[in-house]
Amino acid sequence: MGSFITLTTDFGLNDSYVAAMKGVIYSINPEATIVDISHNIRPQNILEAAFVLGTAFKFFPLYSVHVVVVDPGVGTDRRGIILKTPRAYFVAPDNGVLSYILEAYPHQAVPDSQRVKPGPDLKAYAITKSEYWIQPVSPTFHGRDIFAPVAARLSLGMTAASLGENIDTVTSLPLPRPSLQEAQIIGHILHVDNFGNLITDVKAENLSGKEQSVTIVISGSVIRGLARTYATGPGPRAIFGSSGYLEIALANGSAAAFFPVKIGDEIIIKY
Amino acid sequence: MGSFITLTTDFGLNDSYVAAMKGVIYSINPEATIVDISHNIRPQNILEAAFVLGTAFKFFPLYSVHVVVVDPGVGTDRRGIILKTPRAYFVAPDNGVLSYILEAYPHQAVPDSQRVKPGPDLKAYAITKSEYWIQPVSPTFHGRDIFAPVAARLSLGMTAASLGENIDTVTSLPLPRPSLQEAQIIGHILHVDNFGNLITDVKAENLSGKEQSVTIVISGSVIRGLARTYATGPGPRAIFGSSGYLEIALANGSAAAFFPVKIGDEIIIKY
Amino acid sequence: MGSFITLTTDFGLNDSYVAAMKGVIYSINPEATIVDISHNIRPQNILEAAFVLGTAFKFFPLYSVHVVVVDPGVGTDRRGIILKTPRAYFVAPDNGVLSYILEAYPHQAVPDSQRVKPGPDLKAYAITKSEYWIQPVSPTFHGRDIFAPVAARLSLGMTAASLGENIDTVTSLPLPRPSLQEAQIIGHILHVDNFGNLITDVKAENLSGKEQSVTIVISGSVIRGLARTYATGPGPRAIFGSSGYLEIALANGSAAAFFPVKIGDEIIIKY
Repeated sequence: MGSFITLTTDFGLNDSYVAAMKGVIYSINPEATIVDISHNIRPQNILEAAFVLGTAFKFFPLYSVHVVVVDPGVGTDRRGIILKTPRAYFVAPDNGVLSYILEAYPHQAVPDSQRVKPGPDLKAYAITKSEYWIQPVSPTFHGRDIFAPVAARLSLGMTAASLGENIDTVTSLPLPRPSLQEAQIIGHILHVDNFGNLITDVKAENLSGKEQSVTIVISGSVIRGLARTYATGPGPRAIFGSSGYLEIALANGSAAAFFPVKIGDEIIIKY
Repeated sequence: MGSFITLTTDFGLNDSYVAAMKGVIYSINPEATIVDISHNIRPQNILEAAFVLGTAFKFFPLYSVHVVVVDPGVGTDRRGIILKTPRAYFVAPDNGVLSYILEAYPHQAVPDSQRVKPGPDLKAYAITKSEYWIQPVSPTFHGRDIFAPVAARLSLGMTAASLGENIDTVTSLPLPRPSLQEAQIIGHILHVDNFGNLITDVKAENLSGKEQSVTIVISGSVIRGLARTYATGPGPRAIFGSSGYLEIALANGSAAAFFPVKIGDEIIIKY
Repeated sequence: MGSFITLTTDFGLNDSYVAAMKGVIYSINPEATIVDISHNIRPQNILEAAFVLGTAFKFFPLYSVHVVVVDPGVGTDRRGIILKTPRAYFVAPDNGVLSYILEAYPHQAVPDSQRVKPGPDLKAYAITKSEYWIQPVSPTFHGRDIFAPVAARLSLGMTAASLGENIDTVTSLPLPRPSLQEAQIIGHILHVDNFGNLITDVKAENLSGKEQSVTIVISGSVIRGLARTYATGPGPRAIFGSSGYLEIALANGSAAAFFPVKIGDEIIIKY
C-alpha cells in the first residue's frame, strides 16, 4: 500500500483551499507524501483537469491516490466516487473528470448517456460512508471535508469498499478525437502548454506508417513533415510530444502567440 | 511534538526566497514536512496574509508550526515573535499578521494601541536568542535567517522560551467587522478568491434565526434569500462558504467580474 | 548521502510536466524530499535559471541534488551533465544553466569558447548510461526521462561515475559583471524580484570601504547613500540584499514600476 497522494484542482495558489486539504490529509496520515499536479486548472474546466491528470498519473508509484477537485456541482446530488485501477486510486466528483483514466482501460458505453460501465480491470465506488468525513461537511468544499479524508484513509490501506458502495457506471465525457478520413486526418487542439505548444488529439498510432509524408495545415499555414525536437531549424514545426500527442511548436517561441487559434480548433494532417 | 511547518508569504513563486527558507529548515530538521499555505499574498498586505492563515491553520495537525513572512518592516526595530496556542506555534513579525489567530482566543485590548494582551490560552515570546539564527543575519530577509531556523527548532521540540523571551502584548490590527443594526447588517468584502467569490465579514452567527428572510444588496443589485450550493440556479447568490463567512458567488462564473466592487466595499443584509 | 532533490524549471505550474518528474523521482526513491526552487523561469531563459539557482543552492543540506531543466536544446546533441561540488550534485543540460555554480569554485576558461575546465573541487560527468533512464526517452522531455531518474539515483547513493562519463569541460555563459572604473562602477540590472526590487550585479566587495560615500544614478534619478532596510524613510533606496547584491528598492512599493528600466540596463555608482 503506497502513501502518495496527488492533487489536481482549480483552486489556484492564492487562497488557503489547497492547504486546508493538505492539513486534513496530514492530520489523518502524517506519513503521506502529497504531490501537486496542478492547481491552476481554469475554474470549473472539467476537461482540462481530465487531460492534465491523464498525462501525469502513469508516472506515479503503484497504488498512488489521485484526488481531483474540479467540482462545479459541489453540494448538489452529484456523487463523489473512488475509481480503483490495477495501479492507482482516483478520488473525485463523478462529473467526467476521470474520463481519460476510463479511456485507458476497457469499458462499455451506456447508450444515450454520458456514462460508462467500467470493465473488469476497474472498480467504482460511490463515496457514502460519512463517518469518515470531516463533520459538519461544508456544502461548498467537499475537497476538504470528503475527498481529502477519503484519500488519506485509502493511503493508510483502508479499502475502497469500506469507504463507499460499489456502483456499476460512472460519468465519462465525450473526449475530442481526430476524424480519420481517406487522405487526411482532422485533429483538434486539446491544450496549450506553458511554452505555447499547441497539443492536439492526434496520436502516433493515427499516423502510423505515414510519418514521412505528412503536411499539416493550421490556421491557413502549412507545415511540411514532422520534426523530432523543438530546437532544430526555424519556424513552426509539428512534433510528437512527451505525452504521445502531435504538437505544433515554435523553436524558442510560442506557437500559441504565432497562430490565431484556440482550444477546440481544427488542424488538418494530409498524407 | 509534531514536525509540520507551514509557510505563508508574499514572496511569489518566481524567485528563490521560498526555497532558501525551505533549505534552511531542512538543514536543521531534515524530517520536517513543509506545507505552503500561500506565497501569493499581495506584497506587504498584512491583513490578506492574516485572513488566509486564519482560514487554514485549524486544519493542520496538533503542534504544527505556522510561519508567516509578510514583513514590510524587516530589519527595523519591529520584533519577531512566537505565539503559542493550545494547538500550534506561530512564528512571524509582530505586525498584526496573527490578528485572526489572536481573535480566535480570549485576549484583552490595550487601550489606545494596536496591541492586545493574550489570555491564559496563549503565550507570546519575542524572538531574541540570536545563537539560533543564521549568521550574519541579512537585514532584508529575516524569513530565511531568523524565522526559518526558529520554526525548524520548534519543530524539533525546542521550547519557545529557549528561543526568546516572554512578552505581555502583541500587535493585533483592527479587523473588518459587520455593523449589526436594527433591521439590517452592514458587511464588508474581506477577500476575493480564485473563483471570484466575494467573501464578506458576515458570519453565520450574525444571521442566526434570520436565514429564511434575508435580502442582500450589493452594488445596487438585490439577491433574495440564501443558497446552499454554488450550482443551484442561475445568477448571483449569497451562500455561507467553507470558512463560515457569507459569500456572494455566481454559478459557473465570477461574482468579482459581475459586480463592480472591491475589497472593503459594503454589502447590506436586510431581514 | 542526502535525499534532498530540488527542481528549477521553466515548466510553469499549469501543466503536468513538474508532476511527471516528481512521479518518476518518487518511483525510484520513495524517500526523497523534493523541493521546488522555481518553475516560473521565463521559457528558455537560461541565465535567469542560473541566477535563481545560484541564490538558493547554498542553503540546502549537504549532498542535495539540484536538477535544472531549462533546456531549449532538448533532443539535440547538447549533453546532459552531472556537476559534483564538495557539497552538492547538479543535474542539468550542458547549456550554461550552471554558470553561477561554476563561478563559485575555481575553474579555468577555455580560450575562444563558452566552456570552462572545472578546478579540483569539481567533477563533471556527461550523462551517458541509458540503462538508468526512462525508456523510450522522449526527445522533447529529458527532464522526465533522463534528469529525474538520474537525480533519484544520485539521491539513493549511486555515484555520478556510474551514471555517466567524466568530462573535462562544461559550458559556462558570460555572466554580467560590473565595470570597476576610477571613480565609479557601472553595474547592471540582473533580476527583478516579486517585490519589484531591481537586483544588480554589484556585490559588497566591489564597494568595500566606499559604502559611506556612494551616490547611485539609475534612469536619470539620483539615490544618495546606502540604506540598511527596505522600510526606513520614503522614496527609492539602494541596499545590499539577502544574496549580497546591490538592489534598488522602494519602501512599500515597486522600484520596477517606479523606474522605466529593464534587465541588462546600467546603473552608475559614484564614490
